[in-house]
Amino acid sequence: MKIYLDCFPCFLRQALEAGRIAGADEKTQRTVMDRVMARLLDISEKETPPRIGDMIHDTVRSVTGNSDPYREIKRRHNEQVLAMEEELSGLIDGSSTPLSDALKLAAAGNLIDMGPERRWKGIQEIFRDFTKKDSTYFDDESFVEALDTANTLLYLGDNAGEIVLDKILIGVLLRETDLDITYVVRGGPVINDATMEDARFVGMTDLVKVIDTGVAFPGVVPEASSEEFIEQYTGADLILSKGQGNYESLSDEDGNIFFLLQTKCHVVADKIGCGVGDIVLQSRQGNW
Amino acid sequence: MKIYLDCFPCFLRQALEAGRIAGADEKTQRTVMDRVMARLLDISEKETPPRIGDMIHDTVRSVTGNSDPYREIKRRHNEQVLAMEEELSGLIDGSSTPLSDALKLAAAGNLIDMGPERRWKGIQEIFRDFTKKDSTYFDDESFVEALDTANTLLYLGDNAGEIVLDKILIGVLLRETDLDITYVVRGGPVINDATMEDARFVGMTDLVKVIDTGVAFPGVVPEASSEEFIEQYTGADLILSKGQGNYESLSDEDGNIFFLLQTKCHVVADKIGCGVGDIVLQSRQGNW
Repeated sequence: MKIYLDCFPCFLRQALEAGRIAGADEKTQRTVMDRVMARLLDISEKETPPRIGDMIHDTVRSVTGNSDPYREIKRRHNEQVLAMEEELSGLIDGSSTPLSDALKLAAAGNLIDMGPERRWKGIQEIFRDFTKKDSTYFDDESFVEALDTANTLLYLGDNAGEIVLDKILIGVLLRETDLDITYVVRGGPVINDATMEDARFVGMTDLVKVIDTGVAFPGVVPEASSEEFIEQYTGADLILSKGQGNYESLSDEDGNIFFLLQTKCHVVADKIGCGVGDIVLQSRQGNW
Repeated sequence: MKIYLDCFPCFLRQALEAGRIAGADEKTQRTVMDRVMARLLDISEKETPPRIGDMIHDTVRSVTGNSDPYREIKRRHNEQVLAMEEELSGLIDGSSTPLSDALKLAAAGNLIDMGPERRWKGIQEIFRDFTKKDSTYFDDESFVEALDTANTLLYLGDNAGEIVLDKILIGVLLRETDLDITYVVRGGPVINDATMEDARFVGMTDLVKVIDTGVAFPGVVPEASSEEFIEQYTGADLILSKGQGNYESLSDEDGNIFFLLQTKCHVVADKIGCGVGDIVLQSRQGNW
């Protein structure tokens, strides 16, 4: 997905917020904003938002000297969702449709994202009535069909905290299928996206093989990624891509990809054709 | 009020929206955004938002060649509120507290603003239950006290459409007081702010003397205004300043000024100490 002009104000908002979270004083925040604006003057609209996200957060890290501004936030989100893991797993285990509900839970948890303008206040509200979430863009039937013919699944993760819900979904997939699952995290800290540190912290590494993309983009950009990632990416029978960032970078890529996300801005919602806040599970061969 | 870093993303959003309303194609919209970003790199944070607003909308007009992008929108808003004028006047006339209700109606109507990010969809919803609107920042008692000792009132208008509600309020003031009232419009088209054309269209010019500021800033900037305006501004016993733009440019000025507005962004709401969407009627000697 290319960037839209509507993304520009959002880039600036994100730069300011990241600068503040990095602990920058007002003068340094202004320096971050000025550098980002100067870079935005040069960029082509053919770039994808995660590439611009990389530029923004690289600017924030280099101007503020803070190599991982969201580290404490990620830790807190991981702990908060881990504290609910048993209860949420119990709900899924007791469900008559565990896979569908685990997919909805993982989609609901995609709201734990510090990139877009936030419309949530606390972690708790994100999971309220998650089994009732549904949309015409949530095509779990096609996903279940696709699982039938796949031996390997590459699961592209998105955010810390949310990764605990990916664990619950992967648990259901491991019980209900014979899939060989590999989970993917970012190659370095960017926003609150999950890295190998988060995967270890929440126990994802005890459940399945975890690899990283080799780069700190807030999305999966195959051509910029490590050889190990590209090998897995091109070799997987099926790819489950979590979140907006991965959607933004992969929506025009080939491959047997299903996107699982909750839309968090009108640009992505308009592109998919749904409303902001809708849960989505669609293959790229689907109706967009 | 100085500009805040939070205003920068909003400036870009406003530039894009104005470019689109001016009918610019995507390439021209990008040119507008680039020029605005290039100018933002140079500005001092001591500037007030209306001065930056002037720069943005001057850029939009010059890049797109459209000298008044919001002209049709203003005409439509004027017509829509004029169509409700009789009904709304009837409600005020039948009220046991006509002045207080007319002030609330004028504050509610301040939402008809194409500058900030819009939280309203139709004109009708703006007036729903306006008499029930209230806030601890709506100090009509002090305003009524100030009226007692004033002979002249300078009423600084804000937006088209909304100007019809200013007419209703001025009607009540003319009935209940002996005030000599002058109404002020912008000196040229900017966003959907009311100009002399709007004042004539809605009949404000038949009710009181109307002057303009001499400049097309989306706020009143005394030092940049015409001599005629400055004479009235410095000579008035009491000033009633409508809207966020006038608040942003006058909040640090001397003078016997009451601000009547509805807050439309968290920067202004935070500065006043209230919530976004609150109605406000406060003198600058008040509690901010």
